[in-house]
Amino acid sequence: MALIVQKFGGTSVGSIERIRNVASKAVQTRKAGHDLVVVVSAMAGETDRLIRLAREMVDKPEGREYDVMVSTGEQVSVALLAMAIQALGYHAVSLLGFQVRIITDSDFTKARIESIDTAAITCALKKGSIVVVAGFQGMDAGGNVTTLGRGGSDTTAVALAGALKADLCEIFTDVDGVYTTDPSICPQARKLDRIAYDEMLEMASLGAKVLHTRSVEFAKKYAIPIHVRSSLNDNAGTIVTREDAIMEKVLVSGVTYDRNQAKITIVKVPDRPGTASKIFTPISQASINVDMIIQNVSEDGFTDLTFTVPETEVSRALEVVSLAAQDIGAATVLCNKDIAKVSIIGVGMRSHAGVAAKMFEVLAGEGINIMMISTSEIKVSCVVDTKYTELAVRVLHDAFGLGEQPAPAAG
Amino acid sequence: MALIVQKFGGTSVGSIERIRNVASKAVQTRKAGHDLVVVVSAMAGETDRLIRLAREMVDKPEGREYDVMVSTGEQVSVALLAMAIQALGYHAVSLLGFQVRIITDSDFTKARIESIDTAAITCALKKGSIVVVAGFQGMDAGGNVTTLGRGGSDTTAVALAGALKADLCEIFTDVDGVYTTDPSICPQARKLDRIAYDEMLEMASLGAKVLHTRSVEFAKKYAIPIHVRSSLNDNAGTIVTREDAIMEKVLVSGVTYDRNQAKITIVKVPDRPGTASKIFTPISQASINVDMIIQNVSEDGFTDLTFTVPETEVSRALEVVSLAAQDIGAATVLCNKDIAKVSIIGVGMRSHAGVAAKMFEVLAGEGINIMMISTSEIKVSCVVDTKYTELAVRVLHDAFGLGEQPAPAAG
Repeated sequence: MALIVQKFGGTSVGSIERIRNVASKAVQTRKAGHDLVVVVSAMAGETDRLIRLAREMVDKPEGREYDVMVSTGEQVSVALLAMAIQALGYHAVSLLGFQVRIITDSDFTKARIESIDTAAITCALKKGSIVVVAGFQGMDAGGNVTTLGRGGSDTTAVALAGALKADLCEIFTDVDGVYTTDPSICPQARKLDRIAYDEMLEMASLGAKVLHTRSVEFAKKYAIPIHVRSSLNDNAGTIVTREDAIMEKVLVSGVTYDRNQAKITIVKVPDRPGTASKIFTPISQASINVDMIIQNVSEDGFTDLTFTVPETEVSRALEVVSLAAQDIGAATVLCNKDIAKVSIIGVGMRSHAGVAAKMFEVLAGEGINIMMISTSEIKVSCVVDTKYTELAVRVLHDAFGLGEQPAPAAG
Repeated sequence: MALIVQKFGGTSVGSIERIRNVASKAVQTRKAGHDLVVVVSAMAGETDRLIRLAREMVDKPEGREYDVMVSTGEQVSVALLAMAIQALGYHAVSLLGFQVRIITDSDFTKARIESIDTAAITCALKKGSIVVVAGFQGMDAGGNVTTLGRGGSDTTAVALAGALKADLCEIFTDVDGVYTTDPSICPQARKLDRIAYDEMLEMASLGAKVLHTRSVEFAKKYAIPIHVRSSLNDNAGTIVTREDAIMEKVLVSGVTYDRNQAKITIVKVPDRPGTASKIFTPISQASINVDMIIQNVSEDGFTDLTFTVPETEVSRALEVVSLAAQDIGAATVLCNKDIAKVSIIGVGMRSHAGVAAKMFEVLAGEGINIMMISTSEIKVSCVVDTKYTELAVRVLHDAFGLGEQPAPAAG
């Protein structure tokens, strides 16, 4: 008998019929003899409806009241799911953030979990109930309702699993698991059986939409295995787990891409100490996220400075940068939105040289020009012209053998 | 400077525009220098939507989960109202039942308030905030969300006013106040300036839909004056208050009617000890509310027994009664749904004889046959054929001078 935390997203609880489906999955797990905590999101579309209503009232709703409002979405789905489980003849009880005592900081709309009291859940489990917990919500030390921001229900599930010392955290979603790359642009994409926390973190932050970064950080911290799987079938999905628990030995686990970036170049920046700071301080003060930064070697006392920002923030960034460029006496500012960041990820890179070189060679072989490069211990990212996105993903996927089932490592 | 509790019902907060209107009313009161607590219901239609959703899931939702679900309606409106007040440049903070600590019993869907902690509200008022409290909801001793049943937001408002020792409780609604009778059937109906708690209780329980009985009981217990008024204009409404605070000296304050009653007669009941109990015990066991009961004087050892029940429960009542009638050897059971109960109400009756006699005379003068009579200290009710309802109301309203403005009592 194990203690299992299951999480179902908005699509999985998007209608009365789908909530009934979730209820029977939960009951199935209970029948197998396991203790079960189910975390649910708001019904698909409900959070958006609430946000629209708040925005109809005021352009920028105050965070505290915004959280009071949007947290009702999860409150409705926990009640409906508890009713659905009861209708199948099993005990169920819903618990809201404040009832569990999921204590967060007071950073409304994107609060961080500080502690979780397990007493209420443990007590309900002991009585034989399936415990249905509202995802995405908590309470701060002052008793105010808070919400956890994007991917909040994943975070709730993984944090609960950690606090309860659960044996497994199952994240049910509308995909079958984590793929080597996006199957919609690369038919050879293969579902991974296992992936390391660090790889998943890179995949999540680089645009794979399966799991939110913060929930993976929690899982890594508490060493809780996450099983990402489909709510529509009983197939095994992908286990996100400790690196040393992964048997498959591969160099590269996945290829990701992100088309929502823009590249800004400041041409002929005088190469003096302090110029970089004069450019990037106002950008950071404007809360614009800069991703990659490249500065070429100086020629004749001038250099070109290039960096990427999210496409949605490009016009704000240009305003700030143009002023700074004038200030430091640079020649001009160029902008290119037609770029894509393509990355390869794998913990295997740590112990193998030559992975980056192979990536460059593969892209060059297809005539794809690399505009920018950035690397970390377990990933290499290249910025290329957006029209090459699919081609780059496919040739890299092929070149690193991701379509093939890897041989298990010798025991 | 006074402490005022205002309550706005579902219609008054039925749209973004209407919530803005409520916000400006609240700000107006704040500008006048008063401390203000605003209690709101769910937006009109929202509670029904939630109930429909719950019933789609299961025929009879479990009370605890039902309350978790329907209480979200008020949670959305408090957040929206707080945002609207903030948009006008005033401080506002919403508080849910659990945040105020409105402690109720655990009788889900119709819980009763046991205690109210004033600390959170008082603290927010001291900081200069308008405090927006979710009506209709509370929390039981175990931390479960509860709701107060029909008219629950009125009860929340009056109970808060009592606990906070407020100077006034204003109930904003879609009518101008409490009328001498229903203006839709009697054009001479006049808005009352003041009405005593006991009169309002009789009016409320006899079918006037302005205030719920339980909230009036609270107001009476804590001697909180209630101002019932329209949210659509600034006219003075009706003050519900202590009897001795009412200056107008009238015999009768209002005429009410109720067409949702049915009359059941058991013919030729053997006049033996214990027969009444054999009839009414099974009825009460079936949770059917009996209102009036009349037993005529016995002739030849037989009597006719007549009583009224709500029209919605008449078929269930007939089933139970027919069995009991066979059991005691009565001749037959008759039923009449075409009846109406017409009542006159007034604390002035206490000290004046002849009010009932005048009522009978007025009805007789119009050829209206009285089928049943029941009286209390401050009301007389007559059951008549339903076709006479409007006529009876109008002639009684006229005969007791309710259309005229009463002369103030000598000081």
